[in-house]
Amino acid sequence: MNIREEVSKMKKVSPHVAALPPEMRNRALEMIRDALNGEKERIFEENRKDLMAAEQNGVPSPVMKRLKFNEDKLLDVSRGIGQLLILPDPVNRITLNRELDKGLILKRVSCPIGVIGVVFEARPDALVQISALCIKSGNCAVLKGGRETTYTNRILFRIIYENLLKAGYPENCMLQAEQHNEIDELLQCDGLVDLLIPRGSNSFVRYIMDNTRIPVMGHADGLCHIFVDSEADQDKAIKILIDAKTQYTAACNAVETILVDRSIAGQFLKKLIDAMSKEGVRLRGTKEVTDLIGGETIGEDGFIEYLDLTASVKLVSSVDEAVDHINRFGSHHTDCIITESAEKAEKFMELVDSAGVYQNCSTRFADGFRYGFGAEVGISTGKIHARGPVGLEGLVTYKYRLYGDGQIVGDYASGKSQFHFRDL
Amino acid sequence: MNIREEVSKMKKVSPHVAALPPEMRNRALEMIRDALNGEKERIFEENRKDLMAAEQNGVPSPVMKRLKFNEDKLLDVSRGIGQLLILPDPVNRITLNRELDKGLILKRVSCPIGVIGVVFEARPDALVQISALCIKSGNCAVLKGGRETTYTNRILFRIIYENLLKAGYPENCMLQAEQHNEIDELLQCDGLVDLLIPRGSNSFVRYIMDNTRIPVMGHADGLCHIFVDSEADQDKAIKILIDAKTQYTAACNAVETILVDRSIAGQFLKKLIDAMSKEGVRLRGTKEVTDLIGGETIGEDGFIEYLDLTASVKLVSSVDEAVDHINRFGSHHTDCIITESAEKAEKFMELVDSAGVYQNCSTRFADGFRYGFGAEVGISTGKIHARGPVGLEGLVTYKYRLYGDGQIVGDYASGKSQFHFRDL
Repeated sequence: MNIREEVSKMKKVSPHVAALPPEMRNRALEMIRDALNGEKERIFEENRKDLMAAEQNGVPSPVMKRLKFNEDKLLDVSRGIGQLLILPDPVNRITLNRELDKGLILKRVSCPIGVIGVVFEARPDALVQISALCIKSGNCAVLKGGRETTYTNRILFRIIYENLLKAGYPENCMLQAEQHNEIDELLQCDGLVDLLIPRGSNSFVRYIMDNTRIPVMGHADGLCHIFVDSEADQDKAIKILIDAKTQYTAACNAVETILVDRSIAGQFLKKLIDAMSKEGVRLRGTKEVTDLIGGETIGEDGFIEYLDLTASVKLVSSVDEAVDHINRFGSHHTDCIITESAEKAEKFMELVDSAGVYQNCSTRFADGFRYGFGAEVGISTGKIHARGPVGLEGLVTYKYRLYGDGQIVGDYASGKSQFHFRDL
Repeated sequence: MNIREEVSKMKKVSPHVAALPPEMRNRALEMIRDALNGEKERIFEENRKDLMAAEQNGVPSPVMKRLKFNEDKLLDVSRGIGQLLILPDPVNRITLNRELDKGLILKRVSCPIGVIGVVFEARPDALVQISALCIKSGNCAVLKGGRETTYTNRILFRIIYENLLKAGYPENCMLQAEQHNEIDELLQCDGLVDLLIPRGSNSFVRYIMDNTRIPVMGHADGLCHIFVDSEADQDKAIKILIDAKTQYTAACNAVETILVDRSIAGQFLKKLIDAMSKEGVRLRGTKEVTDLIGGETIGEDGFIEYLDLTASVKLVSSVDEAVDHINRFGSHHTDCIITESAEKAEKFMELVDSAGVYQNCSTRFADGFRYGFGAEVGISTGKIHARGPVGLEGLVTYKYRLYGDGQIVGDYASGKSQFHFRDL
């Protein structure tokens, strides 16, 4: 397949896909949900081929779990589509409606981004979720999933694409890439692809960012912090820390560095190490920390993203010091303060420069489903446009529509006409 | 000056600048306006040094006009600051306020982007406008203006920075770069600078885009179209076309390509060439066009951005054909249809993939002041975040604030707790 040629065709149909009415986009989603359920036995059969191959290749069992597409996963994606169906249309929302002068009306209207390329890990349910988000938001998409689920991806994509055509979508509205070298071809499609969303390992996301002129949304690192303030409810803190570290260690929103106010360290670190040890979590700390509770001592270069049952611990003397550490060493993803002081929480939230700033709850809440977005295409640590979990709103932009009746700028430049800027 | 070192200091103070209350930001703007007026004679004196040097270097007179900073320009920038003062605060706007579950509240709150680097042409009024927008929006800024106004830039920046400190801003909240090689140093400051806004020639903007990992906002090209539909009011069309081509030829929102419906070409092109000739505008066209009205014939590669008294002309048979031409050859900046048919206008506006889509008015309206934004830092043709004239709203992003009381994800994953997603 020549990716550039296929994506050129997609670019040409994308304004027409963007203009499809919301009823048609929703109808397509319903048809896809029904077809996935109708053809489930065939999907499960294809998935078994992927699982067998993975087993032969000695894929570890936590990864195997992600490759699986069974009744549970089907129920999840069906529910996800159901949620998207009832969410309001993100397209054609009027966010500015202003009379500039008599008969000169300016409207800012949300519209789809256009052509989106998504490269994602081997998780068949992700293929369905990402497609569904793109369909609901009026975008065309090029999808490239992990090769470990090639058979499952292929049948899922076929069902989705066939039903889009049945629902009245134009050809080339969606495309599946299957070969790894096609990713590099996709990266060269600037001018045709409007946005790239890579998901996967740090090194993979960084490779994408470094090798394309297309805007990239997402994040390479997920180095999240929890700061236990002197006014923390310590039992609450322990409960939250365990969830944030162990509920899903491989997630980007798992906690990696624990900051503790120096004034409560003597008492709190003992509780922390007891609770964490029970869960199999290994703590590494600065010298000051390991002097108190033992374990491996780390320096400034030790505050890393583990993605396993390990965490770094450091003492600080104030909210300000915690903020400085987080802004300097963090990845601007999601960071939390545990405190009963509303004042300190506000200060922390104001000064920490991250997509998510939390008080008294687990960093694992940073997720599109948990924010009520139905699903997410990813989590963005960029500040330009979408930030945090990216649902439908992150997949639309806007254009300014200006309606006139012969107005020319010369009349305003000369003072013959004057703007009056009245919001309608 | 070591740019990286200075920008590191700025990065460190930027969360504190972002947290300054709106009253303080407005107060600083008032003080700057007063000081500019109070020291105007010294500013004009410095400006005369720049103008003398420019004259000696044989700078052409339209450019000389831009270098000038006189009573008129001072009045303009003072008025601009006055407009910004009364605009609502773009920071701390709550755009989502949702109860996820009892005691678990999610707010999406707008916040400054952080550290913005702006590289702009030799226009002293631009320095004041850009600084004022950054101050109102709570951002820190590195400013690099054109070297032809070095003396004027220096005194304007000194007045602005001194008054920021007087108003209570921290040191390093704003920085002026003066040497051309400092631009390259700035491009290397990824991780410290959050956004770059380059203004200037196509080749300069493209150089910036190609040589940095920092997000860039702006546009390289401004290839704007006006399509004269078969149902156009032809006199209105002529009046608009003359304004869009001649009112300021060097502007990015001037019209460069005129598309005319084939069914009215015989009659309309005669009117067009008569009117345009009187204004000194030279028309180039496809063979079909030059067969009718003479002039230079162009091929597919002839649809370029002129920025002078020249325009390309082509015939099309429908709105669809006009849209295809614009989406293929245009720069996604601002494009207009002249028609009395509301239906055709809607179709054109829906399908043209540009930041501004107009009906029956001049493309020259694409401007932050004319949209009622007070001023603009530039015009963006990117779709990720800001699009079109970028005023205050384009200079803020948002963060998600989540307030809890000990909630952990495990309880929701296990089904022990359930989200109820209630917008407040």
